[in-house]
Amino acid sequence: MELLRQTLEKIGNLYDNAMEESRNRVDNLIKPKGSLGKLEEIVVRLSGITGELFPKVDNKAVIVMAGDHGVYEEGVAPDPQILTAVQACNFPKGITGVCALAKQAKADVIAVDVGIAADLDEPRVINRKIKYGTNNMAKGPAMTREDAIKALEVGIEIATEEIKKGRNLLTTGEMGIGNTTPSAAIVSVLGGYDPCEIAGRGAGLPVERLVHKAKVIKRSIEVNKPDVKDGIDVLSKVGGFEIGAMAGVMLAGSANRIPVVVDGFIATAAALLACTIEPKVKNYLFASHASMEKGAARASKLLGLEPMLNMDMRLGEGTGAVLTFNLIEAAVYMNNEMITFEEAGIIRD
Amino acid sequence: MELLRQTLEKIGNLYDNAMEESRNRVDNLIKPKGSLGKLEEIVVRLSGITGELFPKVDNKAVIVMAGDHGVYEEGVAPDPQILTAVQACNFPKGITGVCALAKQAKADVIAVDVGIAADLDEPRVINRKIKYGTNNMAKGPAMTREDAIKALEVGIEIATEEIKKGRNLLTTGEMGIGNTTPSAAIVSVLGGYDPCEIAGRGAGLPVERLVHKAKVIKRSIEVNKPDVKDGIDVLSKVGGFEIGAMAGVMLAGSANRIPVVVDGFIATAAALLACTIEPKVKNYLFASHASMEKGAARASKLLGLEPMLNMDMRLGEGTGAVLTFNLIEAAVYMNNEMITFEEAGIIRD
Repeated sequence: MELLRQTLEKIGNLYDNAMEESRNRVDNLIKPKGSLGKLEEIVVRLSGITGELFPKVDNKAVIVMAGDHGVYEEGVAPDPQILTAVQACNFPKGITGVCALAKQAKADVIAVDVGIAADLDEPRVINRKIKYGTNNMAKGPAMTREDAIKALEVGIEIATEEIKKGRNLLTTGEMGIGNTTPSAAIVSVLGGYDPCEIAGRGAGLPVERLVHKAKVIKRSIEVNKPDVKDGIDVLSKVGGFEIGAMAGVMLAGSANRIPVVVDGFIATAAALLACTIEPKVKNYLFASHASMEKGAARASKLLGLEPMLNMDMRLGEGTGAVLTFNLIEAAVYMNNEMITFEEAGIIRD
Repeated sequence: MELLRQTLEKIGNLYDNAMEESRNRVDNLIKPKGSLGKLEEIVVRLSGITGELFPKVDNKAVIVMAGDHGVYEEGVAPDPQILTAVQACNFPKGITGVCALAKQAKADVIAVDVGIAADLDEPRVINRKIKYGTNNMAKGPAMTREDAIKALEVGIEIATEEIKKGRNLLTTGEMGIGNTTPSAAIVSVLGGYDPCEIAGRGAGLPVERLVHKAKVIKRSIEVNKPDVKDGIDVLSKVGGFEIGAMAGVMLAGSANRIPVVVDGFIATAAALLACTIEPKVKNYLFASHASMEKGAARASKLLGLEPMLNMDMRLGEGTGAVLTFNLIEAAVYMNNEMITFEEAGIIRD
């Protein structure tokens, strides 16, 4: 709790002066004003985050949080639960989707066990296991309030360690069979949506079981009555260990003025929790892709970040965010390599 | 004409067997089937283009075609025409938008003068000038049919030279004050649209002059009566030298089985011309970003390629396409780095 409290205290506003100086420079680069659209907005906000006119994003990491879900026993996911453990061990081997894309984007992948329901025979997955999976939220809280705080603090600690190593761009990925169910619960609670509007097919739930999934989510919310104004309460009642840890990474990024890219549906649920706990977190978040998951568009809208990529993706793991690393890096290249009209000796009206 | 004829003859179909083999592998990588969406489609098509199960895209170039437009005298663009020449000389200096983004994407930029209305004092811009700008299409054909073929052949020659150097991923950029006007004319003709639906603000035409721009386009089409079934006729009557040369690059890419990324509005107009001349060209084209230019969405739909990036960009130069190089490279990394369920020893139902 002390770590969480200290972290929240450190989260500040964007630097207005740096943003103004950056906006002035970006507006005067040799192109029609505004013609590089979101690349320009990215640079200005990076300046607001870092206070630098020439921010850097050359040390990137994806922190993949893995955990299991008690609600799995309700039959909300088609895959065997053991896949969480199997796939967690595949991250250090570099053979998963996010590893492949991270290699292209020159980012490192860090895998963390926050609550997998099995012991792993892979020492390169950081062991920060809180429990062997959450409790079944359809029957009671997914975790205690203490464990929810622990999950947030695991994320804060792992992210802070990475930031100490010099990371200047972070994102979160996840692995957890069944985790679109708590994510949909979180989005439903925080957005006031009927779970039928949000529950999607996840990694491939048959369409005919979608109604069942939505009912399970509805029951979970009714049983637990999460307090929409208390992000920690929502996390503890209908969340997951990996989702809490992802939110923790976002809190730590914000506290240390390091930008964090929000991946797809599950990461957006985590971001909504983080922003409920501390609204200033939003200053430090960047959108990535429009996930194919049913509730993703509503979740992004609720968070207030418009996705930049339309790739029809729904893998998770942080794959959409890692693709976005390139866009943020491109924005920085725009800022570093282009010159202003004045520098080019072009006089404008 | 001979070079164009030979090039068109060489353009073939995708390799079905290679695509099937690629699809089979991609479907079996350790992820839910289809969950990497467009990245999967990119790899399968690259295999269809190249015949390789592991295609490469590690040698990338942006060919920027520059030219001026007689229709400029109708007052369809807010900037001084000399900016085409000034900016063309900035490409070799590496200070323009596309140069900055190309540096991030590890792509080379090649600038070509196909018809700038001034002599350039910059030997690093390849001089393939056909004329000092096109004629005013509002009063008659923008160029002769011979010059239209010349423009296409400039593109073919430049692209073929690059392909001989080992390029395995190409795109086209452009610089030409006023060139959204002929582009809008091309899209209007080929799609059967009223120019009012297509004419946009380009690099910053005041809103109140949009109606005038649309009228100029309408008049150009009425005066010249381009034959919608004859891409060369459309190019000669309401096109531009740089637009023809861009189409030529697409033809050469197709003939040599090299993928070409289509940038924004002007490149899409060029792609529509190339596909009108030879419909098989579409097999070799990849979409990039949704340009902010008014007619861009209709043009992309007409071409049948859905943009992957929503960056609110409208700079041109090839900037959106260069951002997309990263996505295509990421697809190749997915294919190279991920392993199949079988290779991972995971047995599925």
